[in-house]
Amino acid sequence: MEIPVVANVLKRGEEVAAKNRATLRAAGVRSVNLMGSPGCGKTALLERTLSSLGGEMRIGVMTGDLTTTRDAERIAALTDRVVQINTGRGCHLVPDQVREGIARFDLAGLELLFLENVGNLICPVGCDLGQDARVGMFSVPEGDDKPAKHPYLVLEADLILLNKSDLLPHVPFDIDVFERDLRAMREDVPLLTMSAVTGEGFDAWLDWLRRLVATRES
Amino acid sequence: MEIPVVANVLKRGEEVAAKNRATLRAAGVRSVNLMGSPGCGKTALLERTLSSLGGEMRIGVMTGDLTTTRDAERIAALTDRVVQINTGRGCHLVPDQVREGIARFDLAGLELLFLENVGNLICPVGCDLGQDARVGMFSVPEGDDKPAKHPYLVLEADLILLNKSDLLPHVPFDIDVFERDLRAMREDVPLLTMSAVTGEGFDAWLDWLRRLVATRES
Repeated sequence: MEIPVVANVLKRGEEVAAKNRATLRAAGVRSVNLMGSPGCGKTALLERTLSSLGGEMRIGVMTGDLTTTRDAERIAALTDRVVQINTGRGCHLVPDQVREGIARFDLAGLELLFLENVGNLICPVGCDLGQDARVGMFSVPEGDDKPAKHPYLVLEADLILLNKSDLLPHVPFDIDVFERDLRAMREDVPLLTMSAVTGEGFDAWLDWLRRLVATRES
Repeated sequence: MEIPVVANVLKRGEEVAAKNRATLRAAGVRSVNLMGSPGCGKTALLERTLSSLGGEMRIGVMTGDLTTTRDAERIAALTDRVVQINTGRGCHLVPDQVREGIARFDLAGLELLFLENVGNLICPVGCDLGQDARVGMFSVPEGDDKPAKHPYLVLEADLILLNKSDLLPHVPFDIDVFERDLRAMREDVPLLTMSAVTGEGFDAWLDWLRRLVATRES
């Protein structure tokens, strides 16, 4: 009896993710699943993104966290298009939570939706939420060995961000090692080095988002 | 059929953890389950600990990582008492892996064993490995909101480390916010602020380890 039950659970997750994707695409909303360590700067990235693009496109944020609403409060200072998902002990967002979250947005008023995953480099990987693009985010103080140590995220990401470039002078970090390990796994994936605090390298990220939103079907 | 199966799996994990604890204690080995984010500095902490205490006590390290042996290689430069556990897609160490790892050590030659968990603030929590003490490790660049955002780790830790204090001048981080959130959950837990890079605050950590090892039963 066990295996069929597990298979049904997996299948149900995939079905819900497919529904999420269909719902968002039909509404002309592009979506990004943002994955990275606790404290790599996901919320800071979104704050600066909203400040930079808020007048140019309509952006919503669904933010996942175990028990607090802190990320959503930070985002709410910049937009009212924000929904907090509390996962409790859950270590990543799941398609059903995103489905419930989507229902809280006025999709007709959105062009881009961020799914800010729970801070975790491992468990969100391989869980399709129905997003258009998966962004894997590292940060300089985590060390230059992170692509090698988190290959599954690297292998599935559509874009890799290396945040906190402003800390390069202050920590042991060899950017050549970081890039070599990344390229050994993925020659093709774009890598953007940036600082969400200083804005260094941020324009390339904004352009990547503009190109994503330009592929909207409606 | 499902619930009994799940219950058996949980029970088996607890039983193996209890066996690990009994084996280590009978051999006079004190053990520490070290949990923290990817890149918070767990391996750097152990490197400096081995350099500082290597001549004073016999220390072993079991280091968990998805697929690489990088942490074990760093530790192996300082001691041959090191075992790498590759968890594959597993997001934390489990008691069975620790059991297998323990068998690789000469326990009679050990006084202290570190179980360096996979970099993850969520999933290792609540999984007893059979350790004597659980250390929850944060780092300054992760931000001052981490205790509030990771309450389950805070609630079960026997010691909280705040690493990378050398980066305090370079990042937005309010130590009062960090401490206030921590103390709201745990008045009692010791907090040690330190830098494994500069050695600032490291003596208090070494003394904590000395006190732990002094409680050995044989």
